[in-house]
Amino acid sequence: MRTQVGIVGAGPAGLLLSQLLALHGIDSVVVDDRSQEHIVARARAGVLEHGSAELLRRAGLGARMDREGIVHGGIYLQYDGVREHLDFRDLAGGRTVMVYAQTEVVKDLVAARLAAGANLVFEVRDTEVDELTSDHPVLRYTTPDGVRHDVVCDVIAGCDGFHGVSRPSIPDRALTIFDRTYPYAWLGILARVPPSTDELIYAYHRDGFALHSLRGPEVSRLYLQVAPDEQLSAWPDERIWTELRRRFALPGWELADGPIFDRSVTPMRSFVASPMRYGRLFLAGDAAHIVPPTGAKGLNLAVADVAVLAEALVALLRDGNPDLADAYSDNCLRRVWRATHFSWWMTSMLHRAPDGDEMREQLQLSQLRYTTSSRAAATTLAENYVGYPPLDLGGLDLPAD
Amino acid sequence: MRTQVGIVGAGPAGLLLSQLLALHGIDSVVVDDRSQEHIVARARAGVLEHGSAELLRRAGLGARMDREGIVHGGIYLQYDGVREHLDFRDLAGGRTVMVYAQTEVVKDLVAARLAAGANLVFEVRDTEVDELTSDHPVLRYTTPDGVRHDVVCDVIAGCDGFHGVSRPSIPDRALTIFDRTYPYAWLGILARVPPSTDELIYAYHRDGFALHSLRGPEVSRLYLQVAPDEQLSAWPDERIWTELRRRFALPGWELADGPIFDRSVTPMRSFVASPMRYGRLFLAGDAAHIVPPTGAKGLNLAVADVAVLAEALVALLRDGNPDLADAYSDNCLRRVWRATHFSWWMTSMLHRAPDGDEMREQLQLSQLRYTTSSRAAATTLAENYVGYPPLDLGGLDLPAD
Repeated sequence: MRTQVGIVGAGPAGLLLSQLLALHGIDSVVVDDRSQEHIVARARAGVLEHGSAELLRRAGLGARMDREGIVHGGIYLQYDGVREHLDFRDLAGGRTVMVYAQTEVVKDLVAARLAAGANLVFEVRDTEVDELTSDHPVLRYTTPDGVRHDVVCDVIAGCDGFHGVSRPSIPDRALTIFDRTYPYAWLGILARVPPSTDELIYAYHRDGFALHSLRGPEVSRLYLQVAPDEQLSAWPDERIWTELRRRFALPGWELADGPIFDRSVTPMRSFVASPMRYGRLFLAGDAAHIVPPTGAKGLNLAVADVAVLAEALVALLRDGNPDLADAYSDNCLRRVWRATHFSWWMTSMLHRAPDGDEMREQLQLSQLRYTTSSRAAATTLAENYVGYPPLDLGGLDLPAD
Repeated sequence: MRTQVGIVGAGPAGLLLSQLLALHGIDSVVVDDRSQEHIVARARAGVLEHGSAELLRRAGLGARMDREGIVHGGIYLQYDGVREHLDFRDLAGGRTVMVYAQTEVVKDLVAARLAAGANLVFEVRDTEVDELTSDHPVLRYTTPDGVRHDVVCDVIAGCDGFHGVSRPSIPDRALTIFDRTYPYAWLGILARVPPSTDELIYAYHRDGFALHSLRGPEVSRLYLQVAPDEQLSAWPDERIWTELRRRFALPGWELADGPIFDRSVTPMRSFVASPMRYGRLFLAGDAAHIVPPTGAKGLNLAVADVAVLAEALVALLRDGNPDLADAYSDNCLRRVWRATHFSWWMTSMLHRAPDGDEMREQLQLSQLRYTTSSRAAATTLAENYVGYPPLDLGGLDLPAD
């Protein structure tokens, strides 16, 4: 079998890449070891940067997002008994974010790709990428019927996440790894209750961070900082709500509760593999980098990688110009490091360190007061949150918004 | 003996307080265990915030500063082979800093106080502050002639620095201490050579931070990050210059060297004692808080404390109104924590951690790139450097500038 771009992973990065390539007449095969049902059911991130939402629209994926998603023009920062609003429209040149779950983005992508007759192969096993430094790398996998497939490609895109096979297929000596773990995790829930806020609340509390997010008018998404080895069994519903009420407490405001129908513990990690290319294998999204969830950058970095990669692959495969492909890793890593720093900064500002260092707490509170009182400081948060630098979609040759 | 304000310490805080009180008709006694010669000879900080310079002018101390000091409208940040200028005038509403050594400020203060017939007592020993919770605290000390003095005061100002007697005279239970040390120090030199730069250069380098500062047209002040336990004997002149040239290296630019006539190792510490008042004892400057030297906040915090304290004591002792004295600690600590955070941030961004954490280095470089490319981020540095929030001198009832 033969394709131009072999894509490992049918998450948002792989599916969006396949979509953008198809819009430019480049064919691809997307394989994933998970089932289609699993892929569209996972509760993940939910905040799209201004540029990410714009790219989805231009790629023909904006209709349901614009109908069901919620445009947010800011966030709340809560600490020390106050809840301050940061107005992104005012601070970041009119830009906003779109609250629309990653799950929904993936549903829209799968539907669009299948409607276009794309080659999506689910539930494969023993996926391999090989001959990466040749002109024709090979993607191998076994379908559920037991048949082994060899797909000869022009390039392979490794969009298979942090635990995928793509990155480990690169020789160790060819990669530099930057890695940091954090001494806390997020206990996240989905609850059937209308959100008690119009925009996200990021709350610093002596007992730990809490985040009030949203999933449409009927569902709330809430998080609590917990220990990295926290057991879900230690958190019956009433304990979760009690703790959430305590960390979000504010005179005159009440947190509504409701049935919890999903819960999980998310570890926190900063990870970057550099460069994001080896021969004809290009890494994109979580396969190359992980950020802690504070600041909602994970999905947006994947989208930005794919925007850069799609443009580079169109130039390479349609026009025979390798310049953008050669610049791919450097171009992506500038944004990746900005977002890695921003995510680390938001995480450090908002979480309570388990060592109870009182100087650290005062530095955090001073940072929070400064961020909510200096226009310049508020702007640094706002411009990073909506996407910094703004995603440049000019080279992608897509219909205007 | 009787005075209105007993001032412990004839550093910039104590002397300036004495000057400001005198301008409002309030008398004081200033005692110090060091000699007058020692006090005016110590090489210390050299950057005055916009508001600090303005206060010195209004207090009648601006003539020589405005003649010999150098107005700086920005700094350079150097990293990764680039040297970027931050323009404070543009970023911080026209405000600037004044490069004028603390030594010179102290000389001007001593001269002004002696000319006004102030009671400055040097080389005292066995200084004590007592009866702090009464209406008449007592300042005791022994003069070089062996005579013990008891000065009955209305209030006592503890301006005797980090190692002074004032803070330890407050019961432990009445103070909360915030303390952090850093795993590096500064080796600082004064050299007889015209500066190789027009404004300060803060340089991040893989082998450690370096700072090029100035002391007038003929003298340069330079610093190297070293280990906290570094021995000066390990640094002959040629090693110092070689290391400075390496850390400041930039194509087309040369560092001029010259005879080194002063050298020292400065440890790095963040320290805050809260509250800054106990009964009728008010702490100001280093007696209450220490910042690492990155960002040049130490002297400026002392000046700001004294501005707040002078206004409060005038209201208390002349008008009988205790409100500002009661608010003194809270009013100062807001600025103290801002500066403590800023100094920690500048220090963390610019120093190489001895553990060699590569992720940390990339986060630092990303922060530096962001600070020099985003106007909002550059403004956060600029507005803190020139003084944030701007010092409010309106309540001090001094002649306008």
